[in-house]
Amino acid sequence: MPDITAAMVKVLREATGAGMMDCKKALIEADGDGERAAEILREKGLAGAAKRAGRSANQGLVDSYIHFNNTVGVLIEVNCETDFVARTPQFQGLVKDLAMQVAAANPRFVRREDVAPAVIEAERGIYRVQANESGKPAPVIEKIVDGKVEKFFADVCLLEQPFIKEPQRTVGQLVTDAIAQLGENIVVRRFARFQLGEMTERSA
Amino acid sequence: MPDITAAMVKVLREATGAGMMDCKKALIEADGDGERAAEILREKGLAGAAKRAGRSANQGLVDSYIHFNNTVGVLIEVNCETDFVARTPQFQGLVKDLAMQVAAANPRFVRREDVAPAVIEAERGIYRVQANESGKPAPVIEKIVDGKVEKFFADVCLLEQPFIKEPQRTVGQLVTDAIAQLGENIVVRRFARFQLGEMTERSA
Repeated sequence: MPDITAAMVKVLREATGAGMMDCKKALIEADGDGERAAEILREKGLAGAAKRAGRSANQGLVDSYIHFNNTVGVLIEVNCETDFVARTPQFQGLVKDLAMQVAAANPRFVRREDVAPAVIEAERGIYRVQANESGKPAPVIEKIVDGKVEKFFADVCLLEQPFIKEPQRTVGQLVTDAIAQLGENIVVRRFARFQLGEMTERSA
Repeated sequence: MPDITAAMVKVLREATGAGMMDCKKALIEADGDGERAAEILREKGLAGAAKRAGRSANQGLVDSYIHFNNTVGVLIEVNCETDFVARTPQFQGLVKDLAMQVAAANPRFVRREDVAPAVIEAERGIYRVQANESGKPAPVIEKIVDGKVEKFFADVCLLEQPFIKEPQRTVGQLVTDAIAQLGENIVVRRFARFQLGEMTERSA
């Protein structure tokens, strides 16, 4: 088996827009040859997700997931380009999976772009104080802080969380794979998550 | 049948905390005698909702309602005092009714206290400009504006909307009646309502 590096996978993903695992498999099949791997992905219909990502998506589904005896509930809107795709079992399953993910993993945002800069700065400040205690040199400390900020995004942003049913890929990867398979742009628009009683400490 | 005025109903409601329709029925049964009507309500276990309204409610249900082929979805949290009441079919039916109301009647707030003062002032300003065009005297104009503000609350606040299944009573009245019947304080904590595509004009 050839040595498939993360960098090779990244280049292929950016070139084809296919999912990470699909890129890795294609590279293995192509013995590490990027051109051949891209061809394999195109043959399988897995390329093109990146191109689709810019297209407007205003169809889709609003769906919910109620968990643990009605103590946790999630409402989610996921958009695609046509009502036809919205009605497919694949898309409906994706939406259910995403709602379940929100119920179980409690993200606060859809994507890192939704996190206010002030929130990120506050997190950086905390990590910097913690890292400074190690007494390591400044460039090392900045690297540690960067790493912790990435970890923070993976905790609080839905698309960066490990997918609960397959923790080896992220939720974002799950969506990218669905884009490749369904042939339409798919956008997780928004979600709401209510946990019973979480507000009663704040108001009467 | 005696002549039961709105004022008589109001006095009885404030005295007993029972629902408006229950008060009216009790007054009819008591031939307009307020004392006797209050007794009837107490006998039926319908009095006392007002006293219960202050008690803390942190149990309850989170539930959802998905409408029109997954194009509208509602998530709602309704609190009561004990898990026992939360599990009753009456409470579960109330929560379903409330979620359906939000789906159909699209309120923006739970109660008028949730509307920001700036929003109310802006509404008053619009109504005042409209009313001024009538050329009526200032005190009359203020009365017209007050009336329109009340109408605004009845449009946008869940608890002041006419209940879709029984438009002769408000949603707030429905909740008050449930408090009287179930014997626990009940609080509509919050809701979210997503309509498919309503955000796609704003963001990509």
